[in-house]
Amino acid sequence: MSRQLITSTQNPRIKHVVLLQQKAQQRRAQGLIVVEGIREITHCINAGFAVETVFYCPALFDASTLSDTGYEIIEVTPHVYEKIAYRGSTEGVVAIVKPRTTTLQDLDLGDNPLLVVLEGVEKPGNIGAVLRSADAAQATAVIVCDPLTDLYNPNLVRSSIGAIFTVPCVACSTMECIKFLKENNIKILTAQLQDSKLYYDTTMTGATAIVMGTESTGLTNPWREAADAHIRIPMKGALDSLNVSVSAAILLFEAVRQRELLHA
Amino acid sequence: MSRQLITSTQNPRIKHVVLLQQKAQQRRAQGLIVVEGIREITHCINAGFAVETVFYCPALFDASTLSDTGYEIIEVTPHVYEKIAYRGSTEGVVAIVKPRTTTLQDLDLGDNPLLVVLEGVEKPGNIGAVLRSADAAQATAVIVCDPLTDLYNPNLVRSSIGAIFTVPCVACSTMECIKFLKENNIKILTAQLQDSKLYYDTTMTGATAIVMGTESTGLTNPWREAADAHIRIPMKGALDSLNVSVSAAILLFEAVRQRELLHA
Repeated sequence: MSRQLITSTQNPRIKHVVLLQQKAQQRRAQGLIVVEGIREITHCINAGFAVETVFYCPALFDASTLSDTGYEIIEVTPHVYEKIAYRGSTEGVVAIVKPRTTTLQDLDLGDNPLLVVLEGVEKPGNIGAVLRSADAAQATAVIVCDPLTDLYNPNLVRSSIGAIFTVPCVACSTMECIKFLKENNIKILTAQLQDSKLYYDTTMTGATAIVMGTESTGLTNPWREAADAHIRIPMKGALDSLNVSVSAAILLFEAVRQRELLHA
Repeated sequence: MSRQLITSTQNPRIKHVVLLQQKAQQRRAQGLIVVEGIREITHCINAGFAVETVFYCPALFDASTLSDTGYEIIEVTPHVYEKIAYRGSTEGVVAIVKPRTTTLQDLDLGDNPLLVVLEGVEKPGNIGAVLRSADAAQATAVIVCDPLTDLYNPNLVRSSIGAIFTVPCVACSTMECIKFLKENNIKILTAQLQDSKLYYDTTMTGATAIVMGTESTGLTNPWREAADAHIRIPMKGALDSLNVSVSAAILLFEAVRQRELLHA
């Protein structure tokens, strides 16, 4: 089957990809995002997202792994691929995808939810890394409060290695989130150094939300006040903080451990 | 007291900083490294490393926090600072420091060592992130086998936020490391998916080394064969791996938890 070939970086389709990568406002307005890398695109398709177009560079990517059903496939030259490859990735494949907007009400909490809530985390890469750990721990969802980035920022998608597609992820305000957790009887555990107990002395076997703020300023007062318990990871060395994605992983897997133990 | 002021990026002192940042070979030959950021430099000084020169930009950094004892202090203009600031940091302070080379024989193992061993980890940023978690867990040391980077790569120093100075860190070969661990009766736990048991079903209360390979290829055979136990973090979602620094943190803090429990 013949596929379109694009050889110029000035081609409007190529300019469109670059625009979507660079401008959150355009992603929102057009309801489209850019996903790069074969693992990411595969998770995206498996999770039922609608892929519209796949661009690939035959010098870098074996296109026989792509099925021709459901999306348009466009071949590009190495020079053009370089233009649409985010941060110089050499995987040779980039897709345009329709994102889903998930709300708190859309979440399927199951019978014993385990949630991660992030407040005010600035770096998209950190949110992506938390999603990756949330996937591994099979968390119910990640909720991002008062986000400073859109959830489909290319840095976030990339650092999540596709977990943004496999883990339900909601953006909302802190007040909406607190209300939602209270209404659903989900225990709120806030990660904070002051007035806190060690995380492994805290029961996480029931419906639990692990809530984390920024490394620099921590959580806002509404969270501290809404908390059922304040928990901390012991900082036994000379440094005074851990990366938020590392902290999230430690806390999430403690919940996994406790829950497995309960069912052992 | 009058301090030297440098206003030109062509100044040989400035060219020297850039050379040390960019060339591992020069760092080795001259026995000097570059440390950027006030937290990093403070940990470096507190850990007893010899700081030779501090460059600061008064527009960005309050130099009254620097004592004039023990090292040369040089003021630079914003334009010059930009030249020596690694990856556009805006903290306004960079130091030239004499690194220490620690060998396996130098390590003080104490009475119940907890070690992290990394084999073949490519990204300096990942090693730095592991060091940060090792500091928080107060691990005895981090051992980097067959490293593909020098331990004072600027990316590593930066991502460790100074933990490269607070946690003893040794580079050696895999065979040297295995011999050392066996001689010291340190239990070898290799992180691997095949033939492994869940990490939280593994006792880490005694002398323990947690050994991790790369995300892509894992550990080499000598490690698998030398292991006292193979351990894995359950991957319960759609993705098949965690970042090495996230995995290291989960395993290290399980050791912390078990050890605290024992002494509770």
